[in-house]
Amino acid sequence: MITIYGMRTSGNCYKLQLLLDQLGRHYRWVDVDSAHGGTRTPDYLTKNPNGKVPLLELADGRRLAESNAILCYLAEGTEFWPADSWQRAQTLQWLFFEQYSHEPCIAVARFIHRWLPQDHPRRAELPTLRQRGMQVLAVMELHLTDNDWFVGDRYGIADVALYAYTHCAGEGGVDLQPFPHIRRWLARVRGRPGHTAMQN
Amino acid sequence: MITIYGMRTSGNCYKLQLLLDQLGRHYRWVDVDSAHGGTRTPDYLTKNPNGKVPLLELADGRRLAESNAILCYLAEGTEFWPADSWQRAQTLQWLFFEQYSHEPCIAVARFIHRWLPQDHPRRAELPTLRQRGMQVLAVMELHLTDNDWFVGDRYGIADVALYAYTHCAGEGGVDLQPFPHIRRWLARVRGRPGHTAMQN
Repeated sequence: MITIYGMRTSGNCYKLQLLLDQLGRHYRWVDVDSAHGGTRTPDYLTKNPNGKVPLLELADGRRLAESNAILCYLAEGTEFWPADSWQRAQTLQWLFFEQYSHEPCIAVARFIHRWLPQDHPRRAELPTLRQRGMQVLAVMELHLTDNDWFVGDRYGIADVALYAYTHCAGEGGVDLQPFPHIRRWLARVRGRPGHTAMQN
Repeated sequence: MITIYGMRTSGNCYKLQLLLDQLGRHYRWVDVDSAHGGTRTPDYLTKNPNGKVPLLELADGRRLAESNAILCYLAEGTEFWPADSWQRAQTLQWLFFEQYSHEPCIAVARFIHRWLPQDHPRRAELPTLRQRGMQVLAVMELHLTDNDWFVGDRYGIADVALYAYTHCAGEGGVDLQPFPHIRRWLARVRGRPGHTAMQN
């Protein structure tokens, strides 16, 4: 059986829960509290020298880091990973967009707003992060104006990855109200068979 | 023929030049000066709504953004993209590591140190960026202690992607001296057939 090392309130970890539940796969989940040093222990750094969750461990001990790389690996050979080469390329485009442009503002705004004390100096970053978040959401809104899903005409791991932090963007003070196509897409994702919610 | 919209001094764009030259593929290169608003014009935003270079355009007009997604697309079916599923997963792991952990400190330090004026307020970010850069390089150094290449026993797109900003880390004041395995790997990459240098 595979093992996921993760933190339940992390969107990057939730992506894997969501896909595995929808694939109907059995897995072991080991909680690692990255907010309180759990990814910086000598034991964990042996598992993932980059000190981050989530981490996938196979039954034979091989390990894979990076949430979106894990999504690709788990989705290969299933309906969540396109058979068409150009659609695979578009899937990767959205996965890199998510990690490079989306997560660093929308997830970080959520972390600061929700978990850091009211007088924490990092709260000064919030206006810039929220402004960037709106720009990133505008890119998604434009795509969803003409498309039900991010790649082709079916739900796949690009949707899984982008859903993870978009659906809780409001927890960072990033307002989804101006984005009606995103809100309808979020509802479509929630309506997929086997959808499970993020723990809060 | 394919077209690359890019900026020659950008490591993210250089990745594509390096791979395409090594594949011996013909391509058209269109310079877009992202440092002076070239990716923010209405015309360019029609091509890539996320307003970034590089961008791949196929002969039939289809377009693909995100440097590492483009690398994967161009490498498919060549020796630069592994046939083995686990090695593909490891390749993607390193590509996401590059965009999420490596580029945001090592490339950004280079940009600030090399191009922003001496009195620019963003210079205050340099100590933190350099410290993070050293941590990221330590992860690479550890891997290269036991491996010649990032995935399997051959040069591939994980090496191409990581070479792009690692080889010029010094331009951001990130010192490669403490990382002998990285320096030897850089020399191996430079020694590959068809290797071309980044314009400076």
